[in-house]
Amino acid sequence: MIVLGIDPGFTITGFSIVCKIQGKDTVLDCGYLSLPAKKTLDIRIGIFFNFFMEKIKKFQITDISIETPFLGKNVQSFLKLGYLRGVLYLLANQNDLQLHEFSPREVKRAVTGFGGAQKEQVAQVLFMLFPKLPKPKKEDVTDAIAISLCGLWQQKRSNFL
Amino acid sequence: MIVLGIDPGFTITGFSIVCKIQGKDTVLDCGYLSLPAKKTLDIRIGIFFNFFMEKIKKFQITDISIETPFLGKNVQSFLKLGYLRGVLYLLANQNDLQLHEFSPREVKRAVTGFGGAQKEQVAQVLFMLFPKLPKPKKEDVTDAIAISLCGLWQQKRSNFL
Repeated sequence: MIVLGIDPGFTITGFSIVCKIQGKDTVLDCGYLSLPAKKTLDIRIGIFFNFFMEKIKKFQITDISIETPFLGKNVQSFLKLGYLRGVLYLLANQNDLQLHEFSPREVKRAVTGFGGAQKEQVAQVLFMLFPKLPKPKKEDVTDAIAISLCGLWQQKRSNFL
Repeated sequence: MIVLGIDPGFTITGFSIVCKIQGKDTVLDCGYLSLPAKKTLDIRIGIFFNFFMEKIKKFQITDISIETPFLGKNVQSFLKLGYLRGVLYLLANQNDLQLHEFSPREVKRAVTGFGGAQKEQVAQVLFMLFPKLPKPKKEDVTDAIAISLCGLWQQKRSNFL
């Protein structure tokens, strides 16, 4: 099971690739993708698709993990987030990946034990779990790590919830 | 210029393929795609992608024409519509197609001359333009024909607007 966790966004998309190595949770790769704001929407969506298609092939991803979206203040952002999510569903289908969705509360609870945790608390727990992890430049990356772990822990999680 | 007009939806997606043959607007193909409600979202999105990829290759499509979306009563439907639109943007990018977007008012005005026209009026004008067109089973098809014509007429339209 090699899980790609993604926190999609047109400005910054955080991603994280995790698996178990000798029973130990391991971050194989993490980072973020920034789409060029000046390019047309279809070009940006093409870049997004190609970037994650490459990651899926390179790391032989088996599972994709994402958060369930919620409607924020901006309806247009919500719709555009849908574009990226549609592309992720397509990637899951084209590469025969298992797709996992978690609410933001589920992600926070899985990592910190508390669904109402702050982003900083989530980050803190992650740095305890992975002390060698370089401090990510964007909080979208820590979010993606948490989401990917949720996918990896899914089995375990379903035992005690 | 061979235009694929699409009115996307998870239940029914209307589509229409139009071009000019000897200066005359011609409908090469039209119909609808119905996605199986019982399949998971990623499978349905995969079917949607493959269906239109085939149409694009078969008819050597050069342009895609779609309507700008508006937030209706159901936020989840709006988000899911975004998934399909994201796939259309991707198809445009992967096949190097020109993408055209029109507001529902623009589509109605282009066809009937009046932006506030009813769906039935739009259909009436279309049957006057294409008397041999079999009556479509779904109004999503007539919508798609109108949207595809908007793409085809774009040049003309920009002259008198």
